[in-house]
Amino acid sequence: MHAIDIIRKKRDGAELTTEEIHFLAKGAAEQSIPPEQLAAWLMAAFLRGLTTAEVNALTTAMRYSGEVFDHKGLGRSTVDKHSTGGVGDSTSFLVAPIAAAAGLAVPMISGRALGHTGGTLDKLESIPGYRTQLSLREARRVLDACGVTMIGQTSDLVPADRVLYDLRDRTGTVENPWLICASIMSKKLAEGLNGLVLDVKTGSGAFLIDPVTSHFLAALMVETGERSGTRTAAVLTSMDQPLGRFAGNWVEIWEAVDLLRNQRSPITEDLRELSLILAGWMIYLGGKAASAEQGSAIAEARLVDGSAFEVFTRMVEAQGGDTRTFADPGRFHTPKFRRQFCASQSGYLTHMDCGKIGWAVQRLGAGRERAGQAVAAHAGLEMLTKLGSQVEIGQPLCNLFADDEASVAEPERLLTEAIEIRPEPAPVPELIGEIITTENKNRFLEPPPRT
Amino acid sequence: MHAIDIIRKKRDGAELTTEEIHFLAKGAAEQSIPPEQLAAWLMAAFLRGLTTAEVNALTTAMRYSGEVFDHKGLGRSTVDKHSTGGVGDSTSFLVAPIAAAAGLAVPMISGRALGHTGGTLDKLESIPGYRTQLSLREARRVLDACGVTMIGQTSDLVPADRVLYDLRDRTGTVENPWLICASIMSKKLAEGLNGLVLDVKTGSGAFLIDPVTSHFLAALMVETGERSGTRTAAVLTSMDQPLGRFAGNWVEIWEAVDLLRNQRSPITEDLRELSLILAGWMIYLGGKAASAEQGSAIAEARLVDGSAFEVFTRMVEAQGGDTRTFADPGRFHTPKFRRQFCASQSGYLTHMDCGKIGWAVQRLGAGRERAGQAVAAHAGLEMLTKLGSQVEIGQPLCNLFADDEASVAEPERLLTEAIEIRPEPAPVPELIGEIITTENKNRFLEPPPRT
Repeated sequence: MHAIDIIRKKRDGAELTTEEIHFLAKGAAEQSIPPEQLAAWLMAAFLRGLTTAEVNALTTAMRYSGEVFDHKGLGRSTVDKHSTGGVGDSTSFLVAPIAAAAGLAVPMISGRALGHTGGTLDKLESIPGYRTQLSLREARRVLDACGVTMIGQTSDLVPADRVLYDLRDRTGTVENPWLICASIMSKKLAEGLNGLVLDVKTGSGAFLIDPVTSHFLAALMVETGERSGTRTAAVLTSMDQPLGRFAGNWVEIWEAVDLLRNQRSPITEDLRELSLILAGWMIYLGGKAASAEQGSAIAEARLVDGSAFEVFTRMVEAQGGDTRTFADPGRFHTPKFRRQFCASQSGYLTHMDCGKIGWAVQRLGAGRERAGQAVAAHAGLEMLTKLGSQVEIGQPLCNLFADDEASVAEPERLLTEAIEIRPEPAPVPELIGEIITTENKNRFLEPPPRT
Repeated sequence: MHAIDIIRKKRDGAELTTEEIHFLAKGAAEQSIPPEQLAAWLMAAFLRGLTTAEVNALTTAMRYSGEVFDHKGLGRSTVDKHSTGGVGDSTSFLVAPIAAAAGLAVPMISGRALGHTGGTLDKLESIPGYRTQLSLREARRVLDACGVTMIGQTSDLVPADRVLYDLRDRTGTVENPWLICASIMSKKLAEGLNGLVLDVKTGSGAFLIDPVTSHFLAALMVETGERSGTRTAAVLTSMDQPLGRFAGNWVEIWEAVDLLRNQRSPITEDLRELSLILAGWMIYLGGKAASAEQGSAIAEARLVDGSAFEVFTRMVEAQGGDTRTFADPGRFHTPKFRRQFCASQSGYLTHMDCGKIGWAVQRLGAGRERAGQAVAAHAGLEMLTKLGSQVEIGQPLCNLFADDEASVAEPERLLTEAIEIRPEPAPVPELIGEIITTENKNRFLEPPPRT
């Protein structure tokens, strides 16, 4: 078998065999196929698309390209949640301990900030001492002890995806439903899950802005998960404004700790609502509830009774984190520079370009320009108001936190472009959209038209 | 400027600016853009296509990515011929000395065997002592002395094309009219030509089999040449069977020497006819005739009076070749192993898969498996009959020459598949098709539909 023949076949729009796709994934993992050939294949796949069978074959081939989680003797059903990337999205810190508190095991492998979106690992690492780079054996010990572990991808896990992901980032082949599906699902299925809920973002802050493509991606991931024996559901959710109160690294931990301690405020209700829905699906798919609604009720109970916070605290400690910072997280948050961003006119907050807001957060110092760079733990954004609100000229809309004044200039410009105030109110996108499961997925499995 | 932005722009089907294309070509020549990014761009360009303006910008950027021929003080108009690749195509050895004998200068830079097609350099190097790797300064001396030089690409000439061509070969992005045009025309225009004739092959032995795409490529090359101030014409010619008597390396030199000495036979008439037409266009475009027809008449005169042979002999000697081998080229041809390939039934030769016949020639030893391999000087194929002929079962159709018996097995299988004998005759494709010039090119400049 030759890589060149597989490239030409996909280039001409034909369907690859499972053997051909395994040859590619193995060649990527072992670096026996050179980067230029993988890159040419990725671009051909991006533009020609993949069939559902090809996506399944690629997902399976990447999933087994390295080690996989072994849950022998765990004695609990395993579940996880994955989001396609958002701004201010700290649901992971809520749903993972909630599901664990409900009797499930959550072996969550997360990523770093990417583009305009935040990264769970970067947020966790703002907790002093917290170690995200655990071996699978160490992670298993935390999982046994706490019911949840939150770690980064190890070098042994899904190496084919690591190689292809890095190439996609440099070859303009990121924003593509087939390749996104295979990348996400290979990593999630390598966790050996019984149930998986996917938070598929739509709207101005999502990677795939077009709703048809987002629904297709969601259905493709449900199809791929179910074919591999993992009960899978996808929730389409609005990413038209930052979720909750904060976007950044430590500030999102702060926000999650507040919610885990039932310190609610109107501005964090969207984050709490979404977390309970996602956790409800995890509990249902993991077999601990008869329906997602019942799962949400259990989730809320585990949140309200403090057991989710207890699980979170134990996990952070098991992974080396200093939970004394949780006592007064606002005090631990000491950015060197703050600035208010105020309304330039009176009216209604009608629209936000949430992608631009995400970039503002990253440029404040929460993200990195190049792989390997350090991020600022305390950089970020605090939303003081939400879409649909009536505001007065000069009213503070958000607070910006950074290491120095220079880091604030570009974010201020981005926010000015991103936030729209109009004299008349406009409808606010619903937070929760379509929920795609194995029952209705076929309605959305038609690939988006070629452009 | 960032390569990733240029890749994404072409991926999304937008037209690149001249600056963006120059950035890419420079990055290729200087190897400052990594191969995986160039490969992704090549695949995007392959599938999205390029506009005429983009092809012109790419051609110009590659042309000037290194040194170019300097014809100061040459005192002759410069012309050349280029073919898109054929089987048994030894026209170069006829048209170059004929045009030189007609008072023009021919600074011909050629390539090696590629895929199923033969390479002029490999053929020339079967002449003992002949040096194809001349510096531009040495080549100029031969050109001054003989009116013609036939050399290989130097490391200083068109380095952007060398990098991109090598990548295209390994990334499945060869068979594409836009990229072929830029590659051919950048090299030819770097020769600094007044006139250029292109032999664009169509049919079963051509790289671009589809006639619509062949015509489009021809028109695109004419457009690109004319825009750069080189008078350019393209002749569409049938590559539905090997041209002339022989296909291989030394055997094609033998055939050319026979024709240059006016030793004609019915089986070489197609090669002679095509050579006179191409040479006629060279002479016309170079300003030595009032029309291509008149050019052909001059060409035939220079062939018949022996002056073309004299020029060829002088050039070979100037480049170190031993022309004593020309005295009896058939005797110098001593393959270690020969086999006849015979008709398996009686009937008419109705069709040949000339691509497969080309592969048979390469696998006999005339071509190479990997870049840098040596080729067998005496390997090749002798055609004993042509399309449309009536043949009897057991009648020899061709002779195979190789270094050993083992090298003959695959070629025999390929020939069995390639040659079709039917009870009834079928129309034979015309050798000469459309001739595309600046007058009629716009009729063919519509890009072929996306498949």
